Amino acid sequence: MQKQFTIPLSPRGLSSIAPPPPWHYSGDFLLVEFWADPAAAAAVLPKGLSIDPASPGHATALFIDWQFTAQDDELLDPARYQYREFFILIDALYDGKPVSYCPYIFVDNDSAMMRGLIQGFPKRYGQVYQTRSFAARSPAAAPVAAGTRFAATASASGQRLARAEVKLEQAVADVSKLGIAGRPVVNLRYFPRLAAGEHQTPAVNELVMSIMDNAQIADVWSGEGKLSFPLAEGEEISDLQPVRVGAGFRGSMAYSVTDLKTLVDNTK
Amino acid sequence: MQKQFTIPLSPRGLSSIAPPPPWHYSGDFLLVEFWADPAAAAAVLPKGLSIDPASPGHATALFIDWQFTAQDDELLDPARYQYREFFILIDALYDGKPVSYCPYIFVDNDSAMMRGLIQGFPKRYGQVYQTRSFAARSPAAAPVAAGTRFAATASASGQRLARAEVKLEQAVADVSKLGIAGRPVVNLRYFPRLAAGEHQTPAVNELVMSIMDNAQIADVWSGEGKLSFPLAEGEEISDLQPVRVGAGFRGSMAYSVTDLKTLVDNTK
Amino acid sequence: MQKQFTIPLSPRGLSSIAPPPPWHYSGDFLLVEFWADPAAAAAVLPKGLSIDPASPGHATALFIDWQFTAQDDELLDPARYQYREFFILIDALYDGKPVSYCPYIFVDNDSAMMRGLIQGFPKRYGQVYQTRSFAARSPAAAPVAAGTRFAATASASGQRLARAEVKLEQAVADVSKLGIAGRPVVNLRYFPRLAAGEHQTPAVNELVMSIMDNAQIADVWSGEGKLSFPLAEGEEISDLQPVRVGAGFRGSMAYSVTDLKTLVDNTK
Amino acid sequence: MQKQFTIPLSPRGLSSIAPPPPWHYSGDFLLVEFWADPAAAAAVLPKGLSIDPASPGHATALFIDWQFTAQDDELLDPARYQYREFFILIDALYDGKPVSYCPYIFVDNDSAMMRGLIQGFPKRYGQVYQTRSFAARSPAAAPVAAGTRFAATASASGQRLARAEVKLEQAVADVSKLGIAGRPVVNLRYFPRLAAGEHQTPAVNELVMSIMDNAQIADVWSGEGKLSFPLAEGEEISDLQPVRVGAGFRGSMAYSVTDLKTLVDNTK
Repeated sequence: MQKQFTIPLSPRGLSSIAPPPPWHYSGDFLLVEFWADPAAAAAVLPKGLSIDPASPGHATALFIDWQFTAQDDELLDPARYQYREFFILIDALYDGKPVSYCPYIFVDNDSAMMRGLIQGFPKRYGQVYQTRSFAARSPAAAPVAAGTRFAATASASGQRLARAEVKLEQAVADVSKLGIAGRPVVNLRYFPRLAAGEHQTPAVNELVMSIMDNAQIADVWSGEGKLSFPLAEGEEISDLQPVRVGAGFRGSMAYSVTDLKTLVDNTK
Repeated sequence: MQKQFTIPLSPRGLSSIAPPPPWHYSGDFLLVEFWADPAAAAAVLPKGLSIDPASPGHATALFIDWQFTAQDDELLDPARYQYREFFILIDALYDGKPVSYCPYIFVDNDSAMMRGLIQGFPKRYGQVYQTRSFAARSPAAAPVAAGTRFAATASASGQRLARAEVKLEQAVADVSKLGIAGRPVVNLRYFPRLAAGEHQTPAVNELVMSIMDNAQIADVWSGEGKLSFPLAEGEEISDLQPVRVGAGFRGSMAYSVTDLKTLVDNTK
Repeated sequence: MQKQFTIPLSPRGLSSIAPPPPWHYSGDFLLVEFWADPAAAAAVLPKGLSIDPASPGHATALFIDWQFTAQDDELLDPARYQYREFFILIDALYDGKPVSYCPYIFVDNDSAMMRGLIQGFPKRYGQVYQTRSFAARSPAAAPVAAGTRFAATASASGQRLARAEVKLEQAVADVSKLGIAGRPVVNLRYFPRLAAGEHQTPAVNELVMSIMDNAQIADVWSGEGKLSFPLAEGEEISDLQPVRVGAGFRGSMAYSVTDLKTLVDNTK
Repeated sequence: MQKQFTIPLSPRGLSSIAPPPPWHYSGDFLLVEFWADPAAAAAVLPKGLSIDPASPGHATALFIDWQFTAQDDELLDPARYQYREFFILIDALYDGKPVSYCPYIFVDNDSAMMRGLIQGFPKRYGQVYQTRSFAARSPAAAPVAAGTRFAATASASGQRLARAEVKLEQAVADVSKLGIAGRPVVNLRYFPRLAAGEHQTPAVNELVMSIMDNAQIADVWSGEGKLSFPLAEGEEISDLQPVRVGAGFRGSMAYSVTDLKTLVDNTK
């Protein structure tokens, strides 16, 4: 078996920031759909993607508590591999087909950051939290039931970037209508050159499509959504401030990753 | 309603490190029972407690992912109030009756730290993680089922203090035999004086018994336990290194706190 | 020598959250003086203190990068003991004499938090950063010289609570005019009772005066100050929003602590 | 001016994880030279580098408190850009010439991580601390003077990876003999492909030489060095455990980065 997939290429592969694929993920999510100003949404799209005229400015904000494992029982080393994530997906068109694009994403774990960069997710470090649900009942349990509220926040460098809240109303029978289910994710895979004179000609510059194997969605509830992106110094996420907020969803999801499809290679 | 229970006593009570009781908790736990050297276990007991001759050196190590709330929807502010905890409980006798005593406890949240100090838990800051279980299946899901392994670690100041692992074997029908269920927790509530000449005469020095209202235990599984306390510079937890490890348990628990019983007030 | 001063009272004293006094501190500070709304400033004062009519609403915001040691080379364990702090001091009168009072303070270290609680500083956890000055010159060096700007921020639970900036103008020959030099610090030392019916009658409730031995101030420069307290959900610091900002200072300070003077003991 | 150099390519360039070069650095370092087992040192070298027969196994461990800025006053946003770093440099030969290679490096900041990846430094997240020196004297000041001890530690995922200590003996007049001064740093710049079947053929695979403009070293003292790499689960750094420890150094350094030289491009 392959020992080393990414840096550091340590002799036994243990010190590597991320193990080789396949990468497996299971997690709980809080999702709120929203509409940003269409011009602001268009401004974050890379060359090759355009706003979907069927849903201009439509987007989803996702907060996920993730568990990760590969082939070496990584889920038994939660201090190194368990993580939490916040990201935004913007409705877009690629070659006439509906896709979604991730302009901003934050995680609290370096292995997840590197795996994301390799997939084209533009990951930065952040602190992400969501209300959890526990089986043993108290006023702190947040049972998955009508009326329960779940909240989530994301911050970076000590500034809050996002807050969401969903009040559960009903279980979702058909999850195919969820934003995360319907549109493949297209990312910009990008790694710069530092050689003088080449700062504008990246070594990797590809439009790629995520391939999620064995995608599972379970226990999804929908309800009223709330979402805001507080103004934060030196950050642009609030340019996507919701002009309208739609439904919210809370559930569990899983998938595996072993592949990535290059749509357009703009590397020169 | 009372606005301020502890510092800072801010005008509207919002900035206080902890809201007034009642405090409600729900969480998932990983528990491993073990036997420390009885002399080492005796050495951590305060005046008024002694080793239980029925179970000399017997102890439990607990890792808990907690959700907390009081009266103001604190569970909707997980960045401030959600936390993870690791602690040890030592079997002891108080006034001839079996109790357990907490010599070491670590949390990753300051509100939990203060609430613990008020209850007599000697809380320090640490980083605590445990394998979670998710409904959406992948190799990362860790379903609550026979054969699934759960692990947990605790660290402080960048040194690992504990690692536990439990391989689930069977659901526990009768949870009354769990260490956490059987013995009331007796703590040393302690707050020093700093005035010169009074460093040895604390302002608060009480043996107290925790009162846990509406205690709930759910979805408990038992299995083979593993536990170790790696040697860490400047730390004494490894003095309680398991000489024998017993069963492990994984489940969910909940309770509320509004009261504390003083057993002995040694304050002078 | 005394082995244990505070919890946990571990057998060898190593695991204690804080070693016994004397406690020694050296650090670099960024200080901005400001005026809050006098009514807001009055609202944070405890019984026994009143607004100083000579300087109503006058206050200082302090950010300090601290190094701590006691008797056991704690400065050689920076992961456990080095820390950063943000706090506010409000001008007040005690018994007709000018003092300052600390309504809010944040640190990124649990040992500092406990030592502060023992001194009556109402410490919570936060993330605090300030621009540093380095001897090896580059545009990143921030030399201590006219025109150099230093900035600092403080956050808690992922929300920014304060930002300060000072543009150095000139070295301060006479540091006696610094807010931190002129007024003794009076704190509320406070530790609650949790027994039912006693939540309002704390076990420790004292007005205390900090005693700082061998106070040193070095290399102080003054300049133009900037300060703001961004609005943060669930926090009250922004109630003290500067209505006017005065001078800023950047320098180094040191002192030792072995004693505390009780002014009024309101414990019942 | 170029707005965006790396991800996310946000419209105004503010949200990017790292601003465009030039990148400027000033910091304080603790350096300990040591000898690893030559076979272990050879095992971490990439193709194209070999052990230097003049100094087989010779290496340096470096801990640096860094301040960073680019063109937009990043040093005034220390919460986002100030950071601490630990890394190892191994003596090696490239094309017959003495160089040094970095097999392991840890930082506590995502912008530094990304800038490092672009330069070929195999950065992971870690917690790094070193004793600081302050102008205001107390037993906590650690003056730069004969007899003062400075210590540093590095951890990742709650496990300590390294501890160093240097007891200052004398100021270094000629810094040209420092390991960091004498050998250019050669890194492996590496970014994987995720497409199925291409996991072993990275998109970027270059041997590169760091170009450090305007390198400055100031206030360097030498003394007795101590260094250890504690055994940590799932980590390989301790394979480089010192078989001999040499001198230690403490000082300040600075440089700027705008360029990178590709020595060999192994990308296929």
